[in-house]
Amino acid sequence: MFQARIYVTLKTGILDPQGKAVKGALATLGYGKVEDVRVGKYLVLTLDYPDRFLAEKDVKEMCDRLLANPVIEDYTFELQEVAK
Amino acid sequence: MFQARIYVTLKTGILDPQGKAVKGALATLGYGKVEDVRVGKYLVLTLDYPDRFLAEKDVKEMCDRLLANPVIEDYTFELQEVAK
Repeated sequence: MFQARIYVTLKTGILDPQGKAVKGALATLGYGKVEDVRVGKYLVLTLDYPDRFLAEKDVKEMCDRLLANPVIEDYTFELQEVAK
Repeated sequence: MFQARIYVTLKTGILDPQGKAVKGALATLGYGKVEDVRVGKYLVLTLDYPDRFLAEKDVKEMCDRLLANPVIEDYTFELQEVAK
């Protein structure tokens, strides 16, 4: 049994309107020293896989095929063994 | 100058329809051994703050006031000093 924590972020150079909106809202609240905000996704998957090698291979595939858009997004992930 | 990486997740027990939809889509693609999917937000803030104590205090405030909904969401964050 594994837990995968996946971080999906926009590639550098891709405009982030949601981040810009958050930055503006923070400035309105008095946090004008926030210079940049980037908003991404954080996914936690619980996987009923017997071994780490297979889990890692499949999580990579899931990211490439569904969870991230490889044209505009990057991703990283961590795998951790958890108790059943 | 600091970089804050903020992870916002739904509290345990709060229904996650987006996660359920992702789980269903993964099953359709052949990844039926994914037992659970939770979808959260991942924010990266660049802060022009001179010291860590103040940065930490303000990031906590920003999370409580704007970035997370304390009724249904939990958050954690990491602060890292970065070059200007």
